[in-house]
Amino acid sequence: MGLKKSWVESANSAESQFPLNNLPYGVYLDEDGVGSPCVAIGDMIVDLGVLEGEGVINAGDEDPVFDVPFLNEFMDLGTDAWKTVRARLMDLLAEGGDDALSGNEDLRNAAMIAQSDVDMGMPFVVGEYTDFYAGRNHAQNVGEMFRGKENALPPNWLHIPIGYNGRASTVVVSGTDFHRPNGQLKGPNDTVPSFGPCKRLDIELEMGAVVGSGNKMGQPVSVAEADEMIFGYVLLNDWSARDIQAWEYQPLGPFQAKVFATTISPWVVTKEALEPFRCNTPEREFELLPYLQEPGPMLYNIDLEVALAPEAKDETIISRTNYNEMYYSSAQQLAHHASSGCEMGAGDLLGSGTISGVEKHQRGALLEITWAGANPITLDGGETRTFLEDGDTVTLRGAAKGDGFTIGFGECAGKILPAVKFP
Amino acid sequence: MGLKKSWVESANSAESQFPLNNLPYGVYLDEDGVGSPCVAIGDMIVDLGVLEGEGVINAGDEDPVFDVPFLNEFMDLGTDAWKTVRARLMDLLAEGGDDALSGNEDLRNAAMIAQSDVDMGMPFVVGEYTDFYAGRNHAQNVGEMFRGKENALPPNWLHIPIGYNGRASTVVVSGTDFHRPNGQLKGPNDTVPSFGPCKRLDIELEMGAVVGSGNKMGQPVSVAEADEMIFGYVLLNDWSARDIQAWEYQPLGPFQAKVFATTISPWVVTKEALEPFRCNTPEREFELLPYLQEPGPMLYNIDLEVALAPEAKDETIISRTNYNEMYYSSAQQLAHHASSGCEMGAGDLLGSGTISGVEKHQRGALLEITWAGANPITLDGGETRTFLEDGDTVTLRGAAKGDGFTIGFGECAGKILPAVKFP
Repeated sequence: MGLKKSWVESANSAESQFPLNNLPYGVYLDEDGVGSPCVAIGDMIVDLGVLEGEGVINAGDEDPVFDVPFLNEFMDLGTDAWKTVRARLMDLLAEGGDDALSGNEDLRNAAMIAQSDVDMGMPFVVGEYTDFYAGRNHAQNVGEMFRGKENALPPNWLHIPIGYNGRASTVVVSGTDFHRPNGQLKGPNDTVPSFGPCKRLDIELEMGAVVGSGNKMGQPVSVAEADEMIFGYVLLNDWSARDIQAWEYQPLGPFQAKVFATTISPWVVTKEALEPFRCNTPEREFELLPYLQEPGPMLYNIDLEVALAPEAKDETIISRTNYNEMYYSSAQQLAHHASSGCEMGAGDLLGSGTISGVEKHQRGALLEITWAGANPITLDGGETRTFLEDGDTVTLRGAAKGDGFTIGFGECAGKILPAVKFP
Repeated sequence: MGLKKSWVESANSAESQFPLNNLPYGVYLDEDGVGSPCVAIGDMIVDLGVLEGEGVINAGDEDPVFDVPFLNEFMDLGTDAWKTVRARLMDLLAEGGDDALSGNEDLRNAAMIAQSDVDMGMPFVVGEYTDFYAGRNHAQNVGEMFRGKENALPPNWLHIPIGYNGRASTVVVSGTDFHRPNGQLKGPNDTVPSFGPCKRLDIELEMGAVVGSGNKMGQPVSVAEADEMIFGYVLLNDWSARDIQAWEYQPLGPFQAKVFATTISPWVVTKEALEPFRCNTPEREFELLPYLQEPGPMLYNIDLEVALAPEAKDETIISRTNYNEMYYSSAQQLAHHASSGCEMGAGDLLGSGTISGVEKHQRGALLEITWAGANPITLDGGETRTFLEDGDTVTLRGAAKGDGFTIGFGECAGKILPAVKFP
């Protein structure tokens, strides 16, 4: 399948992240900071509330779903509504398609805005955020550092998509700067802990699966059902304070090391847009239990990269990898999440776990790239890094590459502000 | 301070859980299951939406806050509003107080309902749920079982209120039955895990602190500020699947073992009502870091008990302890939670951690009471238990005992339904 052509010319470039094939959903902010749901096409956005208000699109619900500053109401309608709206938008934006928008100058002026003229907000209200640990190379590397090569993978790892509950209140959209966290720190030679700014601030390159429709408490779902429940995917940076984590995480897991900020891309790329890029999870060393077995390919072939830019300096690409490195798919993770009867709903966000390839330049966290700080990296401008410095901006990018077109997510960027001083 | 007398006679009994001194907040359900905020007084409830609608109470906000089926809007107003409404309700319900309610039969008929005539709903929408591990006897007992007496307490335990993010979507109100969870299980002699119903279903006797007003992302709070942010307390049963937990929890903490159900009492007892029962956390082995030091007593003297009733049989009290057994207060836990810059808000729920006294009959989990199943308990009817059986109902109760009055929480009860069958 090649490029689908749009009458929005900028969408037809092989370099555009947002061809007609993509149509990702987001929320843009007006001058007063009020958000409205939209889709991206080329270098423009289309306001879905305006189209819905004019009766040009209809998600199938009695009540409007695009008159709120988040996508949750639309997401909650489920897969039939998602397909209906996508097909209608395809028709409205296609070259030679329905001219209800292309042929109506007033409507075009009311509904279409240049992306460069607006800021993007959080695309959805995060219900709850769960983070997984499903990248094998990452788990192997981290395990090797902390437990030695022989015991690198925990015994459960090849059987369970290991995950933990994260914090939803600090999931922020790309472009939201945040303070370096404070926390309890204790070095190997300290007798007691101290409290202060994290010294080992790190990134985690992840994809986030966005749950659309949910299940009821007590009702598990199959992997196929879980796949149906996923509305789309975002880029996700699960910022991590490695020194806080090292001291706090036994026995109940990471807590303050992870709750200060998680950044996502402004655009949610739909499962439909990613359909041509489906691929299989790897061969299994142990057969998975039946509730985790996939009826088909549930991963995606998405190129990913991480860029690091010191304050007021050019960026350096510090990692390139691919989402297809995961051992477990998001559908498997979601099925596992609901297997105990846990209720999942619209806006729940599942972090894939850090995505690392085999090679050093394919690793998705500085912890791995610098081997816990032992091997600093040198940026293009000559500066070195073990972990992040104040003023650093980290940007994630993702691209699923088709024949003559690219499916992108926009940027997932955040800048580190100095730690807040305690009184 | 003794009993405050009310013209609602049933509130003046020394046995009532709901004297005028208490005035806990809840949400009752009408015949159609629609919830309305209310307070308890004796054996009655008072509908706060009706009082607000008639202009008899006013929380100080321009807009009504009691016309919604949850307390979050009121909680979010903060401590001044909480004090204003409580003082007004005290006056309206006191013997010899303002007669706007007592002297108006129509209003009494519209606003006051017998508790026995209604079911209670969830008192607030749970924003996010965090569970702690702050009971020293519990941590000691569990540590001894799994790591031996010498290494029972993790090295961080005396310095950090250890906590982990829980799951809000399955926090349910007392009286909500739920299914025994399924999950991955692996016994010590199994080579690979199996999937099926949990065999070691347990309780955790906890108190829950309900956050009212919040902080902004990036802004830490002091322990004194954290105490101000807490709206009130509930009883909380953090149901736990010990066998699922044992296999999954390394390295990132409990997940499916805890996300299937957490039960809270229908009544949120306010900090003001508990004020006379404040007491100190214990002497410290290590001085706490400054950000965790308490400016005054932040724990509460609240008697707690756990009752277990097999299907259609009488209950047996299996544990009696007191909230004053905690090593860390909820205010300390909340200050720790926000110390990294984590944003907290109205409806966030903090589980105290399992509350166990020193003696066997004071332990707050079957894991401890039966020492991981090695020493079954015998119930009054002659049945024995190591962990919970299908049909068992567990009920938590709490009482702060003043001079001639009792502050209660209602019951925190849940019944175990059989596990859902997988296809």
